[in-house]
Amino acid sequence: MKGRIKMGMVGGVHEGSIGAVHYMAASLDGLIECVCGAFSSDPKKSNITGEKLFIESNRIYDTYEQMIENEKRNNEPGRIDFISIVTPNYLHFPIAKLALDSGFHVVCEKPMTMNVVEAKTLDDLSKDRNLLFATTHAYTGYPMVKEARVRVQEGCLGEIRKIIVRYQQGWLSTFVEESGHKQASWRMDPLKAGIAGSMADIGTHASNLAEYITGLGIEEVCADLSTFVNGRKLDDDGSVLVRFERGAKGIIYASQVSTGEENALAINIYGTKAGLEWSQQDPDTLVIKWPQKPSELVRKGTNYEFLSRTARAACRMPSGHPEGVIEAFANIYKNFALCLQDLSEGRKPVDEHRDFPTAYDGLRTMLFLEAIVESAKSNKKWVRLSSVG
Amino acid sequence: MKGRIKMGMVGGVHEGSIGAVHYMAASLDGLIECVCGAFSSDPKKSNITGEKLFIESNRIYDTYEQMIENEKRNNEPGRIDFISIVTPNYLHFPIAKLALDSGFHVVCEKPMTMNVVEAKTLDDLSKDRNLLFATTHAYTGYPMVKEARVRVQEGCLGEIRKIIVRYQQGWLSTFVEESGHKQASWRMDPLKAGIAGSMADIGTHASNLAEYITGLGIEEVCADLSTFVNGRKLDDDGSVLVRFERGAKGIIYASQVSTGEENALAINIYGTKAGLEWSQQDPDTLVIKWPQKPSELVRKGTNYEFLSRTARAACRMPSGHPEGVIEAFANIYKNFALCLQDLSEGRKPVDEHRDFPTAYDGLRTMLFLEAIVESAKSNKKWVRLSSVG
Amino acid sequence: MKGRIKMGMVGGVHEGSIGAVHYMAASLDGLIECVCGAFSSDPKKSNITGEKLFIESNRIYDTYEQMIENEKRNNEPGRIDFISIVTPNYLHFPIAKLALDSGFHVVCEKPMTMNVVEAKTLDDLSKDRNLLFATTHAYTGYPMVKEARVRVQEGCLGEIRKIIVRYQQGWLSTFVEESGHKQASWRMDPLKAGIAGSMADIGTHASNLAEYITGLGIEEVCADLSTFVNGRKLDDDGSVLVRFERGAKGIIYASQVSTGEENALAINIYGTKAGLEWSQQDPDTLVIKWPQKPSELVRKGTNYEFLSRTARAACRMPSGHPEGVIEAFANIYKNFALCLQDLSEGRKPVDEHRDFPTAYDGLRTMLFLEAIVESAKSNKKWVRLSSVG
Amino acid sequence: MKGRIKMGMVGGVHEGSIGAVHYMAASLDGLIECVCGAFSSDPKKSNITGEKLFIESNRIYDTYEQMIENEKRNNEPGRIDFISIVTPNYLHFPIAKLALDSGFHVVCEKPMTMNVVEAKTLDDLSKDRNLLFATTHAYTGYPMVKEARVRVQEGCLGEIRKIIVRYQQGWLSTFVEESGHKQASWRMDPLKAGIAGSMADIGTHASNLAEYITGLGIEEVCADLSTFVNGRKLDDDGSVLVRFERGAKGIIYASQVSTGEENALAINIYGTKAGLEWSQQDPDTLVIKWPQKPSELVRKGTNYEFLSRTARAACRMPSGHPEGVIEAFANIYKNFALCLQDLSEGRKPVDEHRDFPTAYDGLRTMLFLEAIVESAKSNKKWVRLSSVG
Repeated sequence: MKGRIKMGMVGGVHEGSIGAVHYMAASLDGLIECVCGAFSSDPKKSNITGEKLFIESNRIYDTYEQMIENEKRNNEPGRIDFISIVTPNYLHFPIAKLALDSGFHVVCEKPMTMNVVEAKTLDDLSKDRNLLFATTHAYTGYPMVKEARVRVQEGCLGEIRKIIVRYQQGWLSTFVEESGHKQASWRMDPLKAGIAGSMADIGTHASNLAEYITGLGIEEVCADLSTFVNGRKLDDDGSVLVRFERGAKGIIYASQVSTGEENALAINIYGTKAGLEWSQQDPDTLVIKWPQKPSELVRKGTNYEFLSRTARAACRMPSGHPEGVIEAFANIYKNFALCLQDLSEGRKPVDEHRDFPTAYDGLRTMLFLEAIVESAKSNKKWVRLSSVG
Repeated sequence: MKGRIKMGMVGGVHEGSIGAVHYMAASLDGLIECVCGAFSSDPKKSNITGEKLFIESNRIYDTYEQMIENEKRNNEPGRIDFISIVTPNYLHFPIAKLALDSGFHVVCEKPMTMNVVEAKTLDDLSKDRNLLFATTHAYTGYPMVKEARVRVQEGCLGEIRKIIVRYQQGWLSTFVEESGHKQASWRMDPLKAGIAGSMADIGTHASNLAEYITGLGIEEVCADLSTFVNGRKLDDDGSVLVRFERGAKGIIYASQVSTGEENALAINIYGTKAGLEWSQQDPDTLVIKWPQKPSELVRKGTNYEFLSRTARAACRMPSGHPEGVIEAFANIYKNFALCLQDLSEGRKPVDEHRDFPTAYDGLRTMLFLEAIVESAKSNKKWVRLSSVG
Repeated sequence: MKGRIKMGMVGGVHEGSIGAVHYMAASLDGLIECVCGAFSSDPKKSNITGEKLFIESNRIYDTYEQMIENEKRNNEPGRIDFISIVTPNYLHFPIAKLALDSGFHVVCEKPMTMNVVEAKTLDDLSKDRNLLFATTHAYTGYPMVKEARVRVQEGCLGEIRKIIVRYQQGWLSTFVEESGHKQASWRMDPLKAGIAGSMADIGTHASNLAEYITGLGIEEVCADLSTFVNGRKLDDDGSVLVRFERGAKGIIYASQVSTGEENALAINIYGTKAGLEWSQQDPDTLVIKWPQKPSELVRKGTNYEFLSRTARAACRMPSGHPEGVIEAFANIYKNFALCLQDLSEGRKPVDEHRDFPTAYDGLRTMLFLEAIVESAKSNKKWVRLSSVG
Repeated sequence: MKGRIKMGMVGGVHEGSIGAVHYMAASLDGLIECVCGAFSSDPKKSNITGEKLFIESNRIYDTYEQMIENEKRNNEPGRIDFISIVTPNYLHFPIAKLALDSGFHVVCEKPMTMNVVEAKTLDDLSKDRNLLFATTHAYTGYPMVKEARVRVQEGCLGEIRKIIVRYQQGWLSTFVEESGHKQASWRMDPLKAGIAGSMADIGTHASNLAEYITGLGIEEVCADLSTFVNGRKLDDDGSVLVRFERGAKGIIYASQVSTGEENALAINIYGTKAGLEWSQQDPDTLVIKWPQKPSELVRKGTNYEFLSRTARAACRMPSGHPEGVIEAFANIYKNFALCLQDLSEGRKPVDEHRDFPTAYDGLRTMLFLEAIVESAKSNKKWVRLSSVG
């Protein structure tokens, strides 16, 4: 592949937007270059952002349709290879669909779509057209999450019995939508966010993390969703009893009204031989708990021989040098870019490069989401995930 | 009151038994003296223990009936004031009932009884006879748990929305009963333990802790109980969705197959104004989490002016000097003893001394236990706690 | 030995005094009974304390001389076996000397004496008379400190290169002596405390801990002592470069003006093969740090097979059940009592029982103290510890 | 300023080199573009690196002299604005001097030079020519270090009494130079590293951190430097007693033979009103310790109103989203770039942008280094820093 991989963005890079993180993550390793964008539904804002990012003015677009149309006809070497979608949820599907239909690979924010049908469509489409599709469940990009996945799936914990994921934030503890808080407002608007609020926004990260690390699919759920803040239209808290494949059980809870919590995502997994703990706010350490020997602190770092190749490949620094969520995001972009290079040069992407969440993973989270929303309304104890995925 | 308060024990003080902890806890503050006991159903073992504890040989009894009978007729100043029951569950009720019927105050291990009916009987009886009854949910004896209770009930967190208690141990991860592990064997024997295994043994601590700190009663539960280890007769793991009074919701999970965990009891509480976290394995610190100011580490210590009187009264050491579970147990014995002194000297016990779990608290845990066992068998989502308590 | 070992106390058990801790520690395991005392230089206070402790009135003494004299002539079975000295520093020597001269074993608070000469006298005397002498450097009583000692001395870390001990408190950050703070006042009074303030009070704990764990004697020091608070007469902070036997080097720093610190004693030791970390405020965990495998969290608990026998013997509870400083103190009393039993029954005390700090350890701390005080005044870089010990 | 700021690099971006971090840090925010480089003294390696970084082939240089010469004559808009020096120590001075002489701004790795004279020359030269000079003491780039600086210098801790910095790594615990470990070999080669080994490599970070946060200059030192590993030519461990301006005292210790440690840099500062603690391996939290209220966990995050503007400007993510050392490095590059923009557009750089370590800070570390090396050889207790800076 000649030169950097070319990216076009849809959605903002302004204050408080996740787009800025995508931009940094894509830039970090020097493999990807953002060459165009439709950065806002407001053309003025799109322009301001584009200039700030040193985008050539003729490639700052007013709409994503325009961008995709133009780039599709672009025959120059600078033509984009993929589109990164960082908009509110309801726009993910139409943009991603148009992008795939136009032959572009896609990186898409989570939750991937508004429902299972859309998710299934994108998953099928990307497979049919042999296009790459990454869903940015970014916490899977942390080296120690990858290490956990390798160890669990290699049987280090024995047979898995129990999986507990919690994801707690506190920023929606009060009715911030009322005073026009932008990030809160669309997330709690059913038209823009979909059938769920906090469970869509962060609950899907939790279910994804459980399935990513263990490789066990969620089969049944029993959910209690709540809207604690008056005036709010969607859930801001949820607790779910979970049954996984192969007899494992679990609990997934997510809340954005956990007053005083920041971004407390954590997972505990217990098997017949050992237990495991990882926490996003202390991401460099994976605790392995043994029954009759001391717990081990498995730590991130390129210079640790005891780490799996997959985890080491996701580290940029030697041990003791913290890396964070931008690097985790960047690991998704990096693997996506390496796969893209492989494809463009006619190689089958190696497993290691393919280690990023795909449209299928996005579809899994939508199945989880629809099931818990159904369960929350039901008097029946257990609701099965639909078998579409 | 002249001299120390006199205690008779029923149950063992041998290796691995909780009785040894009771003995140390009762001795720590010099208020209580163990003067007699029926330390084992095996008279030989009872004798060995009694001698080790320097008990006069004529007050080492073969059976608890004998002990209660003899002590009842004892008119010397050394006559016992109360009986401490540290046997397996199924013996709690008959011993406690006989003790109360004979006019002795009681300290009883948890879970208090085998079922709600027994618990109700003891609670009524102790009230009718005006006898003190402590149930050793010992984690309520930690100073920082008391501080949490004071702060939550004074409104420091605002209205409570969510309560999450987890209690995880790993020592039953394998079928240790098979090789005759004594502590495991009776705890997993329905005849000795009752209707539940791990949920009875530690799940009741979790429900007690939630109610103790918040003052909110559990109203409804939705439980998924498991027996992960083949051959075992009772649950070794359980997850429960909980609905409390006043709209608060929660999750209580307890497990003794969390491989690699030691004694990981922790509670998180979130209200409209702030959140709170306490963990039994780091008991000297209570974390208060605020939405727009730094989290605070509220710490145990007699020399902290910001602590409540109740918490300070439960500390024996200045700040930075760890105290542990023996001291937490001792705080139950100490308050029990101080109440006893008050009673014997005709004073109404002050609130501070009355701060220990009673038969009513034990009854609450039995209501919880019966409800979750029913829920675990039911296809209905929610089961209400019976209104007996 | 028939019945419990009998203890007489010299010094107070009132609010804020370390005597209360000694009393609880001696009571905890039921091996020792406090039967008499001279609890204060003020006979009234001595009486109040004695009554509170249920001491028979004729054995509450006005002075320690009286107590020793009377008990010496006591031929009853209740005669004391040893004397526990919990007074300010300047009284340790005369009391301990009289006790030893009268044939009583001794438990003595730290720092053992006012100077090396006194310390040497007591060490010699206890050896000559074959009497037990414990100095309550209580932090050596923690199970994980004992585990550290076993592992280091068995070579687990390889050859020791560096030892760093810090001991920081903040309670003397302001001139509390001025307002009559009792504990502060005598500790900063040269007549009562000796040649050093904070270095005597807590610096000696630090030097003792280093020598206890590593078995390496301190040979040379280079000290910078400070008195940060105006009006104070002794040091309230000190930093010391240290050279140990066999080429190990180190740093010992102690301060009571570390504003906001509670009782932050911690030690790090580095050898050719591994490193180690222990912290008094988190006493149940010993971290072993390996170069090419994960760090291990070695944890307290009677049910861990990987712990040394010595450490397990110092645990009263299963894993995950915190114990604290009272238990650490109690471990000194317990071993002291077990040795006393051995002696009284004509057995040579086993090594395990002999694991408590002796007069020799107290002497070592006085050698350290005199050397750093000399160094602090000197322009010469290194001062050798005198070879008396 | 039109377009991104243009950077030329001298030194490698290959495996294990700090150059890769500089490259990522410079790329992260999209303000800087690496357009040319002399990436290795071996032209072949320089070419490989340059191609990997998508540098145009005619701007991949064989030597830094060639690069500076060519770029100086370059009149195109793509001409470099500054040179980033990521070579071993002995090359910093000649490259930086030539760069400054040629009118280029400079970013330079630490320790800035081989000695004080070189450092003074560069500091003077950059000032005389009004060129920006950043020394990458990257730990000053952490938001919570900046918060510490703001709070300390605003008096939040009161008058500073004690400053303790430790910096411990374990990767030089064995004689890795012997087997050709590249990073170790030059760092322990006096010709390439200078007068000190570990103290130059990481001890200077420690002294810089102390001066950066407190604003107090180091005045006197008393050092004990060691070479624990046989065959090694420079120190691999050092302990230093320190006297700062205004009566503050401290300890600085650095070691690369702390077996099992990763990159354990931490600082504790104590003043008359409060204490403070920050640790590089947990960089998002700053602990403020108060004497009579709970310790506070001041945490990184763009959405915290209680943070200083300076700290918030250094955060890219909301609270609870970890950032690491790459971001800390990037904060130096970002501020450097913003100052450069200011300068190029004729504005006086605002204080906030000027918050990065300069040649003067580099000079300060060289003064510290020369003083401790002198002290280590001396029998005199205290050595003053020369007054050149």
